[in-house]
Amino acid sequence: MRRTKLFTNTQKQTPTDEVARNAQLLIRAGYIHKEMAGIYDLLPLGLRVVEKIKEVVRIEMNAIGGNEILMASLQRKDLWEKTDRWNDKNVDIWFKTHLQNGRELGLGWSHEEPITDMMRNHISSYKDLPAYCYQFQNKMRNELRSKSGIMRGREFMMKDLYSYSSNDEEHQIFYDSCIKAYHRIFKQLGIGDQTYFTVASGGAFTKFSHEFQTICDAGEDIVYLDKKKRIAINQEVLNDEVLKDHNLKREDLEKAKTAEVGNIFSFGGTKSEQLGLFFTDKNGKKQPVILGSYGIGITRIMGVIAEKLSDKKGLVWPESIAPYDIYLIAIGDVDKEANELYEKFQKAGRSVLFDDREARPGDKFADADLIGVPLRVIISSKTLQKGSVEIKKRTEDKSELIKISEVI
Amino acid sequence: MRRTKLFTNTQKQTPTDEVARNAQLLIRAGYIHKEMAGIYDLLPLGLRVVEKIKEVVRIEMNAIGGNEILMASLQRKDLWEKTDRWNDKNVDIWFKTHLQNGRELGLGWSHEEPITDMMRNHISSYKDLPAYCYQFQNKMRNELRSKSGIMRGREFMMKDLYSYSSNDEEHQIFYDSCIKAYHRIFKQLGIGDQTYFTVASGGAFTKFSHEFQTICDAGEDIVYLDKKKRIAINQEVLNDEVLKDHNLKREDLEKAKTAEVGNIFSFGGTKSEQLGLFFTDKNGKKQPVILGSYGIGITRIMGVIAEKLSDKKGLVWPESIAPYDIYLIAIGDVDKEANELYEKFQKAGRSVLFDDREARPGDKFADADLIGVPLRVIISSKTLQKGSVEIKKRTEDKSELIKISEVI
Repeated sequence: MRRTKLFTNTQKQTPTDEVARNAQLLIRAGYIHKEMAGIYDLLPLGLRVVEKIKEVVRIEMNAIGGNEILMASLQRKDLWEKTDRWNDKNVDIWFKTHLQNGRELGLGWSHEEPITDMMRNHISSYKDLPAYCYQFQNKMRNELRSKSGIMRGREFMMKDLYSYSSNDEEHQIFYDSCIKAYHRIFKQLGIGDQTYFTVASGGAFTKFSHEFQTICDAGEDIVYLDKKKRIAINQEVLNDEVLKDHNLKREDLEKAKTAEVGNIFSFGGTKSEQLGLFFTDKNGKKQPVILGSYGIGITRIMGVIAEKLSDKKGLVWPESIAPYDIYLIAIGDVDKEANELYEKFQKAGRSVLFDDREARPGDKFADADLIGVPLRVIISSKTLQKGSVEIKKRTEDKSELIKISEVI
Repeated sequence: MRRTKLFTNTQKQTPTDEVARNAQLLIRAGYIHKEMAGIYDLLPLGLRVVEKIKEVVRIEMNAIGGNEILMASLQRKDLWEKTDRWNDKNVDIWFKTHLQNGRELGLGWSHEEPITDMMRNHISSYKDLPAYCYQFQNKMRNELRSKSGIMRGREFMMKDLYSYSSNDEEHQIFYDSCIKAYHRIFKQLGIGDQTYFTVASGGAFTKFSHEFQTICDAGEDIVYLDKKKRIAINQEVLNDEVLKDHNLKREDLEKAKTAEVGNIFSFGGTKSEQLGLFFTDKNGKKQPVILGSYGIGITRIMGVIAEKLSDKKGLVWPESIAPYDIYLIAIGDVDKEANELYEKFQKAGRSVLFDDREARPGDKFADADLIGVPLRVIISSKTLQKGSVEIKKRTEDKSELIKISEVI
């Protein structure tokens, strides 16, 4: 992509109405636009990062048997009433609206109810189980406050997977395979070392749920880490019994601020009973289907990485999710050579953001740092005298000259 | 994809609450699920078709300079008040909701206002123009009635592109290039011959707008076609002046029911003036930016194709957007050979829906027809005796035996 064909410009000034560092940087660099607190648009660079995160997640969800779907945002009141989650006292983050005939609708903040209802068309026998479906869906949550940028949105992109199993053993096998998939995902996203499998509150259906918490000063959770055992306890469930259950000692734990990037949750058969999702088992007996749900905060992860991996100069993307591989800067009268190099990189399968603007070199360097693409390549009459280009990694200060013939 | 790993089942019965043929077929074949009138979920097969339609559109939009973005659904009231489109009297299909503090929000039914407002951060000089951005966005429209299945949704997927130009000439050049891109798109989607460039009402900003109307009995529009000149006039603007303007004769026209699959629209500089999007021209003069908007109904197109290209047995997808290239059926004790063939097809880059279920051959044939994948391949002990598989196109009745060694 040529900068002259990309409509976004970077901003030198930090937006005055934005307190979260992730959103400040992402706005300045032209990744997102703020509509209001907690509601952001994805601009071309931001959408590319989100699509790359989605693709990492998608490959792993497909690998464990997930079928990708896309549910509507508009929700039927009757389904959520069956599980007593329509009431604002039980779920305090609904956005609600209504049809012209007055019928009330909700805006999806999660999708257990409609997906479980939909599954009644597809599950009737043990032969139909297990079934796994997932989506990348635009959730809407009417948060009272929203000051963490894209780390806690009122509208945000989430991956939510739902598992339907015939019994607890089958459920547990998938639950464990999803934990492994989540570890692989966070590793690929460059936050594997900093992300902990975490024991958290189970709610009405199960003793514990599990979260994936990434160490992050801008996070909103507090967990206690056992760094050796690579496990954490959310402060909401920290007590002697939980420590004993998990073979942990209080003195080994370290308090940390974290951001919840994933969670997994067992519902047992209750929700299926409430919504009428039953199957006939091998003995001809009618049973409720066992439900699990498995979330990953896609746009939140973009925010967490922007917080954690940035520096004074701007964003620093890991290669796996950078919007482009290379930021190519042309200085001076080198149009022909720069265009040839741009084409060559692309033919070699590398994505390039080509700063072909008529702008001062200093502005181009500043933009390369702010936008945070992994590799900066400079081509100028000076480098061309040596038949070379200058290459610098975003994570390093030193650059080196490399022969054009060897650069691809 | 193996049918045993795909959670959806087909339905023999037509859903009783669904009057639209497109939705009846798509529901029976497991492409979509109905939440309520006008609100549908995309199941795995449906999502694949939608993603394929999107990719055809995306490539063409990128080719004419579009930058892909994704705007929020939740909308600021103040922006829409500036253009007098918040009022329910002027726009009668708003879904509205509110934050917990009472602040009113709308749900995006179009995005001219927020995108034009966002562009104020990126456009200030003639050097920033032209700028083109587009998105695939989940629009919500509170339609009074919704009986056309996915051809008129209350929630639906739309491609909307917005052009920002410095003057009318620059605007017109893009407008014309978008018309050409739309023709290429509808041709690739298999409805090129049946889709007419149509003159329609221009509204407040321009004499005419333009639509792309596909001949379809289930459509909700009436247009008058000149089949030789490949142009149509929407009945809402049919009068002597319009005919004269377009060099058409009333006696050459043919009345047709059609579905609007695309539209393009000029707003001039009015909306930019209302929202404060100005630029400084080459002479240093402040000017409003010229706006155009360009829609394609992505899920509507899936509905139109389901209506037009289906037969008594089910759906018939064009190759360009079929969910899979091949429906592979194994009959009898041929697991090893069937699996080898499944792998081979995939290695050759063909996508395959492999019916590996323990089911009667008749049920598999019926599903192959209902789901409507372009090519059906049968492997059985009978075909294997001849070292062959049986191949049949969905659009033809005759099948032929082809040697396994030659099938790829």
